[in-house]
This record gives sequence, C-alpha cells and structure tokens, in this order.
Amino acid sequence: MARNLEGVPFPHLLDAGRAEQVAQRVKAAIDHINAAGKFGGLEFYFLEELSALDRQVLAEKRLISPQHAELAPGRAAAIRRDEGVSIMVNEEDHIRLQCLFPGLAIGGAWRLASEIDDWLEQRLPYAYCPRRGYLTACPTNVGTGLRVSVMMHLPALVMSGEARKLFSAITKVGLVVRGLYGEGTEAAGNIFQISNQVSLGVSEEEIIEKIRGVATQIVEQERSARQGLLRQARAKIEDRICRAYGVLSQARIISSEEAIRLWSDVKMGIDLGVLNGADSRPVNEVLVISGPGYIQRLAGRRLDATERDIRRALLIRERMRVYKSP
Amino acid sequence: MARNLEGVPFPHLLDAGRAEQVAQRVKAAIDHINAAGKFGGLEFYFLEELSALDRQVLAEKRLISPQHAELAPGRAAAIRRDEGVSIMVNEEDHIRLQCLFPGLAIGGAWRLASEIDDWLEQRLPYAYCPRRGYLTACPTNVGTGLRVSVMMHLPALVMSGEARKLFSAITKVGLVVRGLYGEGTEAAGNIFQISNQVSLGVSEEEIIEKIRGVATQIVEQERSARQGLLRQARAKIEDRICRAYGVLSQARIISSEEAIRLWSDVKMGIDLGVLNGADSRPVNEVLVISGPGYIQRLAGRRLDATERDIRRALLIRERMRVYKSP
Repeated sequence: MARNLEGVPFPHLLDAGRAEQVAQRVKAAIDHINAAGKFGGLEFYFLEELSALDRQVLAEKRLISPQHAELAPGRAAAIRRDEGVSIMVNEEDHIRLQCLFPGLAIGGAWRLASEIDDWLEQRLPYAYCPRRGYLTACPTNVGTGLRVSVMMHLPALVMSGEARKLFSAITKVGLVVRGLYGEGTEAAGNIFQISNQVSLGVSEEEIIEKIRGVATQIVEQERSARQGLLRQARAKIEDRICRAYGVLSQARIISSEEAIRLWSDVKMGIDLGVLNGADSRPVNEVLVISGPGYIQRLAGRRLDATERDIRRALLIRERMRVYKSP
Repeated sequence: MARNLEGVPFPHLLDAGRAEQVAQRVKAAIDHINAAGKFGGLEFYFLEELSALDRQVLAEKRLISPQHAELAPGRAAAIRRDEGVSIMVNEEDHIRLQCLFPGLAIGGAWRLASEIDDWLEQRLPYAYCPRRGYLTACPTNVGTGLRVSVMMHLPALVMSGEARKLFSAITKVGLVVRGLYGEGTEAAGNIFQISNQVSLGVSEEEIIEKIRGVATQIVEQERSARQGLLRQARAKIEDRICRAYGVLSQARIISSEEAIRLWSDVKMGIDLGVLNGADSRPVNEVLVISGPGYIQRLAGRRLDATERDIRRALLIRERMRVYKSP
C-alpha cells in the first residue's frame, strides 16, 4: 500500500531536513499505534542507525526493498516482531505498508493492511484526490495505491515449459510476473511473484478478486503439471528431487544460487510426498539462510565468498536433518 | 602369463577345428588339475555355450578380455569360484593365465600363477625357445610371457595434476599405464593399471621387483598428494566427497560413467576417514554393479539404457546404506 503525506513533496524531491521531518511524523503515528497496544507492536528503525549488514538482512527477508537498504536521509522502517508487517518510510513514497501472509490469504492481508492504514491516517493526513484517489510518486500506483502480490512456487510449470505461455496470458489481463526479490529480479528457485499492474480505475476488491482468481487457476495448473510429470517421467522427477536432497544434506560448500535451485526441487519433493513425513518449513528456511547478509550477521562479521559458502552449507545441513532419507 | 602349445599355430592362424582341439587339450589339463583337488576348483566354460550377457559380465569383472567375449571358434575360459584365477583359451595366445590379488601382493600372485603354470605344463608341451623364452603371438610378450599389473586408485595425483608428469616418468622406465579395463581404455574412476612393457631379456623376478618398487613409490606420492590437498583445500575435498556420497546414496537414475566417477570420490573419502567407520568393500562393488552386463544378468533380461540406469541407482543405494551420513 503506497501512501504520501498531504502538502509534502514526494521523497525524491525532499531535502535531508524535510525527509527527516517525514520520518519523525510517521514515527509519532507508529508510537501512537504502539501506545494503543495495536497490531502486536511495531519496532521503528531509522535505517542510518542500523549497520549495512542489518539493512542487507532486512532486504533479504523482503521486509524492505534492496533500494531502501541503501542509505539516504530520512529512510526508516517499522517492522512487527513476527515480520508479518513492515512499513517503509521515504522509499519511493512517504509510506509503503506491506503485510506478508502465508498461503493464499489475500483477504486477511488486505484487512490487516486497511486497519493499519486507518490508524496511520488518524495522525497523518494523506495526499488524496477524490477523482484520482491516493497520489503517489510513480503514476502507476495512483488510485488505490494498492499492490496485491502472490508468491508462487511453480517448478512443474517451468519444467514442462508451460510457464512462459501462462505468464504471457497473465500479462494480457493486466497482471505482472516478477522474480523472488521483486521488480527486475530473476525467478530464483522457480518462485514467481504475481501482482496487479494497474491500481487506478479499479476498486481494491476488484484487484483482490482478480489476483485471487488467477492465483487459484495457476495453483490448479501447477498441480496438474506435477501430476503430468509424475505420470510421464516419475523416475526422472524422483531422481531430481532425491539428488537435490542428497546434495543439500551433504554439501560442505554451496553458493546461494545453487542452494535456492536445489531448494526448489526439495520443496516440490515434500509437496509431492516423495520426501516423506516432512513439513516444508525447515527447507523454506534455506531461502533466508541462503542470503549473504543473513550468514554474515549470524557470524557477527564480514565473510568472504568462500567462507559464506562453507557456513551456508553447514546451516543448510542442520535444517535438512529433520528430513528422513527418502 | 602368456603360453602357447608347441607345434600348433597361434590362435589367429587356426581354423575352427584346430581351435576346438586346442580348447579340448586345455580342458583336459584343467580336468587333471581339478581331479588332483588343486587350486580350489577351476570351472571350464566353452564361451559359445554362454549367453552374450554372461560373456559380457565376465568381461566387466575382468575375468576375460572384452575381445575374448566376442564369439570365435574354440574360445574358452577356466575360472576359479572366487574369481581370483582365470585362464583364457584361444584369446591372442592359446593360454592366458591371470591371477588377481587384492592389495600390493605381487609375490603371492606370481607364486600362484607359477604353480598353476607348472601343473598345466605337465599336460601341455609349451612353445619355448631356450634363447628367446616363451613364444607368443605378439612379439612384445615373447620371453617371460609375463605381464605384471598393479591397479591403482590415484584421485589426488589426478586432481593435483601430478599424474601426467608421473606417468611420463613411468613410461621412461619401461612400464605402461592403462585405464580400468586395460589396453586402450580411459582411466575411469581414476583407476590406473601399471604394467611392464617388456617381457624379453629380463627375469620374472626383475619384472616383479620393478613393478613393486614403482607401485610403492606411487602409493607414497598419492598419500602425500592427498595430505597436501587436505592441507590446502580441506573444505573443497570434503565437499567433493560428501556430495558424491549424497548423490550415490540418493540418485534414482545413474549412468555407469557417473557412478564410477562418484565411486572414486567416495572411495577416497573412506581412505581419508572423511566417511567414518566404513570399509571400502561395499563402495567397491559399485564398480561391478556399474557394468551394463551385470545389471541385465541380475534382471534376467535385456534392459534399455534408462531401465539400466534406474536399476543401477537402486543397487548402488542398497550398497551405500552401510555408510553413515558423514
């Protein structure tokens, strides 16, 4: 959700002093929310007070954008302890509010975001035009200021080659497909982010319904592609899954790219029941562990690439121990 | 050991009838040995009475040469039950006697071969010239008719790049380096066969001493190369070993080439103690299991390449179960 303060230039036009003022005003609104005991407590951070490593970890966890992790005056973030809510201050807009829910829980995420938005609005007059809706730094966000995104793991659609055709169809109905870390990133680990392109001239409910409908269809297609692959090439798919399990469980040196690629195969193996009696949380942690920032913060110091690859392999091996050899 | 019968043309000059006669004469000598209860029993096979698959398996086990496995009149083989002794009849020479011993046990192999040779000679007059020694179809084997070979697993010398220099030095002292399956084959799995080049003008004892001396030196060099690799790149070596273990333990489809390549890394891991509490017999079986003939004979029928790769993976997984995850 993109919001801006009435009568204040957009962040890219602010000098340091005024950017700082915006951050202080948002902080006051957050303090007000926390004082009311709402939303489980939002921790407020001025990003310049965090180390570069800490900012990198926030970006790897998708709590702030990679751009926001770079230092600039007045940049701040408010983050709920469970990391399900984050608010970026002075990113592209004064306020970018994000709610992250597991599963296809768009309604829940939307209700929570609206409620937090209402609380913020009690203290912060928004730039709003009755005819155009919420005003934003980039015209594509004007209107509802809402971006609804669904992160989807689609290995079978990629393997079967159906993904490309599907994504081109999705683009035609006004949605956008991006990689794991948002705009301009690769679909590492076969994870795709599907979002609305337009936020003007449609209601929030229409956006949510469209994304929900498309996502449900994609889930069906992915499931049927998986069954198709199993029918046509069971040994090949099982081989791929089991090799990925073998390497993730045993490697002593592993790059972030390889770990995420193998994660995708293991995750599919869990979903298909090839890896038995397993829930997918430990292997999902591989995605966070894989980030270079996370590993260095855990080590408490900068590490060169080889040291990171060795520590990454160790952390992943520990997570993999919960899975029984298939 | 290459031997030929006096007064009979070499095998490539024999017609079917005379080749058959040679086989019958050798069979009679073997029957005589078995009747005397010597050498634990040598099973005699006319190769034309074996299936193509059975002949292929004998070749994969190195009990006969790949050439000998192809059908031709009078070809036969006598094989001891434990497969430590095999005698090819009508290969390049009338008689090729081979003793296979584990470890660097050249003396033991030589004593056994000599004793069997003496027993054969009681019934079979050999083509022998006091000035030239034993006469053979190929002039390179004239003299002692003896080839002493040592099979060596030299992964660290290959990895460190020292193998090439070493082999060129070995060639200069009159020895030959070959791959796993003898003349003209690749050194699959980093297994090399080091043998004497010349068998004329030297005594059997000199040949044995030279091979023993060179092999002992190579063992030392391989050991020191392994320690060197561990010192310089322990994580890299361990990563390679553990990944090989992970893939051999988990793959559902595996080619013969990949299996032998990974065998080499796992075997080195056992020797270096990276894979703990393990003896190397189960992983050594991977070498035999990997052969296409072995898998098909076990299945009792011809299998296409994919079926073989699936069954191979299954057989290897069973062998790998004895090793604990490192």
